[in-house]
Amino acid sequence: MNKMEKELVIGIDVGGQSTKLGVVNKDGEIIAQTVISSLQEELIDYINELTKAIKGLIAETTEAGRVKGIGIGAPNGNYYKGTIEYAPNLKWSYDNEGKPTVIDLAALVRSFTGLPVTVTNDANAAAMGEMAYGVARGMKNFIMITLGTGVGSGIVINGQVVYGHDGFAGELGHTIAVRDGRQCNCGLKGCLETYCSAMGVRRTAQKLLFANPDKPSPLRSIDPEKVSSKDVFDAAEQGDEIALEVFRTTGQILGRSLADFVKFSAPEAIVLFGGLARAKKFFHDDMVAAMEENQLQIWKGRIKVLYSSLKDSDAAILGASALAW
Amino acid sequence: MNKMEKELVIGIDVGGQSTKLGVVNKDGEIIAQTVISSLQEELIDYINELTKAIKGLIAETTEAGRVKGIGIGAPNGNYYKGTIEYAPNLKWSYDNEGKPTVIDLAALVRSFTGLPVTVTNDANAAAMGEMAYGVARGMKNFIMITLGTGVGSGIVINGQVVYGHDGFAGELGHTIAVRDGRQCNCGLKGCLETYCSAMGVRRTAQKLLFANPDKPSPLRSIDPEKVSSKDVFDAAEQGDEIALEVFRTTGQILGRSLADFVKFSAPEAIVLFGGLARAKKFFHDDMVAAMEENQLQIWKGRIKVLYSSLKDSDAAILGASALAW
Repeated sequence: MNKMEKELVIGIDVGGQSTKLGVVNKDGEIIAQTVISSLQEELIDYINELTKAIKGLIAETTEAGRVKGIGIGAPNGNYYKGTIEYAPNLKWSYDNEGKPTVIDLAALVRSFTGLPVTVTNDANAAAMGEMAYGVARGMKNFIMITLGTGVGSGIVINGQVVYGHDGFAGELGHTIAVRDGRQCNCGLKGCLETYCSAMGVRRTAQKLLFANPDKPSPLRSIDPEKVSSKDVFDAAEQGDEIALEVFRTTGQILGRSLADFVKFSAPEAIVLFGGLARAKKFFHDDMVAAMEENQLQIWKGRIKVLYSSLKDSDAAILGASALAW
Repeated sequence: MNKMEKELVIGIDVGGQSTKLGVVNKDGEIIAQTVISSLQEELIDYINELTKAIKGLIAETTEAGRVKGIGIGAPNGNYYKGTIEYAPNLKWSYDNEGKPTVIDLAALVRSFTGLPVTVTNDANAAAMGEMAYGVARGMKNFIMITLGTGVGSGIVINGQVVYGHDGFAGELGHTIAVRDGRQCNCGLKGCLETYCSAMGVRRTAQKLLFANPDKPSPLRSIDPEKVSSKDVFDAAEQGDEIALEVFRTTGQILGRSLADFVKFSAPEAIVLFGGLARAKKFFHDDMVAAMEENQLQIWKGRIKVLYSSLKDSDAAILGASALAW
C-alpha cells in the first residue's frame, strides 16, 4: 500500500525589516525556516529573493512532504484581493512617484511558484495562528490586539476572521481613544495606536519627562527622539517612577478602548500580542481596571484578557500558514 | 395532486408599551396582525395574553397555511438562551424584590403554544428584517443602528447577525462617545445613547436652551423635563435655531461614532432606523461630514449611510419573523 504523501504549507510573515518564511506540517510544526530582508527598494528584487527563498524551502523539505499552498501575512494585506495596499513601511511597494501603492502580491508569488497563494494582514494572521495553535485554541469569538510599532487587530467571530465588505475590517488601532488627541500617521487624531504602541509609549515618556522636570529618571540620559519602549521597560524594571507611570497610562487608555471593543462583538477573550505585550506586568492591572470600569454590567468580570503563548516569529508564520490549509 | 400546504411564521415585537404580533408568509407579507399591551405587572398575565393572541392569529390564518414557528424580538433578548435579561422597561420581567431579572421567554411561549420559538434583541430583529425585506437586501455586511428611546445596534457580518460568545453582541449604544460625558442609565458615562437617542436629543435641547438664555425658541414654552424629540423636530421645522443646533450636534456625535464602528467590521453600509431617524433632514449632513472627517483614507466616501425603508412596526415584526424561518 502506498504511504500517503504528507501535506505541507508555507507561512510567510512580511515585516517592515525582514520577511520570515516557514514550512509547516499538519501538526503546526515549523519543519524548516528562513529569513530574507524586506528592505529592497525595487519590487522585482524583493519578489526575486522571495521566490528563491520559497523554492529553497520546498527543495529542503521534499522528503517530508508536498507543499500545497502559501499563506502570507503582510501589513495592509487584503484577503479578498490578495494585495498589499498603501503600506508605508515597505519601500518596494512604492510607485514611481515615491508613494505607497497597490501590489498584487498573491498574483506575483503564484506566478513564480505555481502554488495557490492567500494574503491577509499581519494581525489577522496572528489571530489565526493563535486560534489554531495558541491561547485561543477552541475559541470561536475573540479579538486579537497586536501591540507593536503600531496597534493592529484581528477579529474572530463564529470561528472566522472578520474581513468585512472590502477585506479591510479590524482597524481597531485607529479607533479614537482620545478625542482630538495625538496626531496619528493615518491623518486622524487620538487613534489608539498613538498611545498604546511602541511609538505611543515613547510619546508618553517624552510627555511625562517634560512635564516633570524635577523627577530624576534614567530615561533623561537618552535622546528623547530615540527613547524606545525597551528603554522605558528597562527603566521600569529599575523602579523608575516616570517609566512606571508611562505603562500605567498606556494600560488605562488601552483598557478603556478594550471595553468598547467588547460592546461590539461580545468576545470570549481579548488576546494581546506583540513586543509591547512583554511589558504586561507593568500595565496589566491598570488595563484590566480601566476595562472593568468602562464595562457594561453583563460583561463585568467576564471577559478574559490573555497573552499570546506563541513565540512572536512563530505565531506570524503559523498564522499565515493557517491561511493556506 | 395535493396542493402543498403553505408555511407561515409569527413575528413578535416586544416593546416597552405594546407587543405587536404578525403572521408572515414566505413573501414577507404580514397577512394578519394584532397588538397587546406590554404594561402588565405580572409575568403570568403577560404570558396569558400573549398566548391567547398567538392562538387567535393561528386560528385566523388557518386557511392561508400552517404556522411553523415563532420569532420574538425583545429588549435585552438573548438568542442563545431564549431569554430576556434584566430589561428595565418591562415590569412583568421584574423579580419579587422589584428588580429586572431573567425571563425564559422562549421556553414559556413554547410551552403554551407547542411551537418552536426563537428570541433575539429588538435591534438584531430589525437588522434581519432590513436584510430580508428592506434596504439591506442582498448585503452581507452592514451595521443597523436603531435611534429610538435609546440607541441599539444589530451587526451583520457575512450575512449573519453577530451574537458573540454570550449572545449579547452589538451594544454600540453604550460605546463611549464622549469621555466622562453624560451619565447613562447603564451606569457608564458618555455613552452614545446619552447623545443620539430621543432622550439624548432632549438633554441636548435642555443644555442649549440653558446655555443661550437670550435666544428665543418655541421650546421655551414646554416644561424642560418633558421636551420630546418630536417637540424639537417641530421647532426645527419652524426654523428654530436652537432646535436646528440640537440636531446638528446629534449628527456630529453620531457621525464620529459611526466612523469608529466602520473600523471594526468594514461594512458595506450603515442603516439607520427608529423614531429619531425621521429627523434625518436635520442631522444627516452633519453626521456624514463628521463620519468622513474621522474616517481612514481607505473608507473615505465609500461607506453608504441608508435609512430603513420599512414601516417601523412592520420592520420589527418582519425581522422577528425572519428568525423563525
